[in-house]
Amino acid sequence: MKWFVRLSVLLLFNTAFSQEAPLPAKNKYVLVIHGGAGTILKSKMTPEKEKAYKEALTLALKNGYAILQNGGSSLDAVTAAVTVMEDSPLFNAGKGAVFTNEGRNELDAAIMSGKDQAAGAVAGVTTIRNPILAARAVMEKSNHVMMVGAGAEKFAASHGIRIVDPSYFYTEERWRGLQNAKKEDSLKMELDHGNKKSKAYLFTNKDNKFGTVGAVALDQHGNLAAATSTGGMTNKKYGRVGDAPIIGAGTYANNQTCAVSCTGWGEYFIRVVVAKTISDMMEFGNRTLSDAANEVMMKRVPALGGDGGLIAVDMNGNYTMPFNTEGMYRGVVKADGSIVVEIYGTDAK
Amino acid sequence: MKWFVRLSVLLLFNTAFSQEAPLPAKNKYVLVIHGGAGTILKSKMTPEKEKAYKEALTLALKNGYAILQNGGSSLDAVTAAVTVMEDSPLFNAGKGAVFTNEGRNELDAAIMSGKDQAAGAVAGVTTIRNPILAARAVMEKSNHVMMVGAGAEKFAASHGIRIVDPSYFYTEERWRGLQNAKKEDSLKMELDHGNKKSKAYLFTNKDNKFGTVGAVALDQHGNLAAATSTGGMTNKKYGRVGDAPIIGAGTYANNQTCAVSCTGWGEYFIRVVVAKTISDMMEFGNRTLSDAANEVMMKRVPALGGDGGLIAVDMNGNYTMPFNTEGMYRGVVKADGSIVVEIYGTDAK
Repeated sequence: MKWFVRLSVLLLFNTAFSQEAPLPAKNKYVLVIHGGAGTILKSKMTPEKEKAYKEALTLALKNGYAILQNGGSSLDAVTAAVTVMEDSPLFNAGKGAVFTNEGRNELDAAIMSGKDQAAGAVAGVTTIRNPILAARAVMEKSNHVMMVGAGAEKFAASHGIRIVDPSYFYTEERWRGLQNAKKEDSLKMELDHGNKKSKAYLFTNKDNKFGTVGAVALDQHGNLAAATSTGGMTNKKYGRVGDAPIIGAGTYANNQTCAVSCTGWGEYFIRVVVAKTISDMMEFGNRTLSDAANEVMMKRVPALGGDGGLIAVDMNGNYTMPFNTEGMYRGVVKADGSIVVEIYGTDAK
Repeated sequence: MKWFVRLSVLLLFNTAFSQEAPLPAKNKYVLVIHGGAGTILKSKMTPEKEKAYKEALTLALKNGYAILQNGGSSLDAVTAAVTVMEDSPLFNAGKGAVFTNEGRNELDAAIMSGKDQAAGAVAGVTTIRNPILAARAVMEKSNHVMMVGAGAEKFAASHGIRIVDPSYFYTEERWRGLQNAKKEDSLKMELDHGNKKSKAYLFTNKDNKFGTVGAVALDQHGNLAAATSTGGMTNKKYGRVGDAPIIGAGTYANNQTCAVSCTGWGEYFIRVVVAKTISDMMEFGNRTLSDAANEVMMKRVPALGGDGGLIAVDMNGNYTMPFNTEGMYRGVVKADGSIVVEIYGTDAK
């Protein structure tokens, strides 16, 4: 009897949801994206590079906006936006991902649906062209939330997700980044004398180490979604996984509160459980989105020694993009079609 | 200059922490453990098997208690308790872990320190005798939080963690469990006709599928810790990872609130971000531990369709062990040395 009762409840539930709601978010829909936070200084940027980043961010926003404007889902919008950034060699996700210590590209991604808390994630995959599509397949076509390594690749392939030779992910700039990181890390170890804490403050070029892409959106139906994709950390070893594919840490969405996607020093974002903490401050502490996101990003993460940034949107279409690094590639498109893309902090040097 | 200022702050911070506190938890120390939740029915249990489980739980509690009583750390106590259960073939962790679809044992574990939110996790490892020791090494001997697969094994080996041949994890009962699960899963697929939701209600023997071990503790110094270890899900495919190694989902600890370790249908625990939600309900909603844990375990997880149980202890030594399955292997030892171990629900059949 038990399953029958449960099934009836489910059917009722589905019926309730399938009735057309009055679209409270009809004119509030919004898409926010990031392409990584770090030591991004205007003084070190060429006009050509800045232009390329702005064009790539704009393209990601336009692709997602076309879906939202047409009444499509926030899940489709964040997937489209992240896919554009994965395909661009400029960002540390998909093509252009950073290299591990062993000279490989190991990719992580996650996606979450605010309507039903459905979620999917992959970690440590090396042959999936668009890890965000694999994460979405895990969410929609399996009973699981997270798959790692060769198993995740096998699952993705069996669902028609495009597989590529690992050499697809190669870019000369990231390869040079690995060589530099190896030099810096060996220098760091010499200087280090076993003082674990000091390691954190000796990174001379964290840009070569971090960077992630992500998107959060509210659609016309009032549904939130979040997606994050990353190549992780340059010169990473030992199958290290960061916060991007960890539901609650780097990626989270809940229609009752907000959708969040993070970028930065993943270990600290995992320990703070950043995305879920913001949602919980709203749900249990009645805090606003910007207040909650600000406290977590500007106080709680730095209190442990971490840095980075995040993007978040709430169920009313309010959004925020706090970061405590010098810059964060970021952008937003609102229901009226207006697009803003930004790179540096307010005190840009 | 920046790193110098930060370093100074760290030194001050460390000094503040190293002063001996007045041991507020001196007489409140407690260790709580679980050995998995599921369809555990008295009517299906033999007296011999019940005795074996109770002895194993008692041994785990005694090992952890010896550490706490002696003024040792909660981290050491949860590590000791989990190690005992990993070494016992009775539980789905370490020796006795369930088999994947491919006939392998893929193990996950995590540990977290409430004092400083340090955390470590491994997932998908196949040769580490005690995954909880590898998780602890990740926490204490790397700058990372999570490592997966062969990389995690390489790291563990390089830190002297004991490596075994995968055949070490074999038990005949779990092997039979895999064969049964394969039969059931193929039957289920025949019955299923693509109705994803109904899958949840057709498991005839979830005991063969789930089960995890975990421990949470408060020590005499007022420090909380949580640890979880699992073989995952019988017949799992595609490198599936559950909630156990996900910080915030299956494992979380924070001295300001509580320490939590979960067992059950991992996918739902990830989507609810169970452990951090309990902590946040306490921190932002001023809820008590038992109130928060009860709402999450008995309402929020079942609302999505999941089941299982959890153990949790707060900074005052209050503890709770809610589960919504027929039973959960569980036990507690308090500062006075009194031990209680239990298996069934209050309406045991």
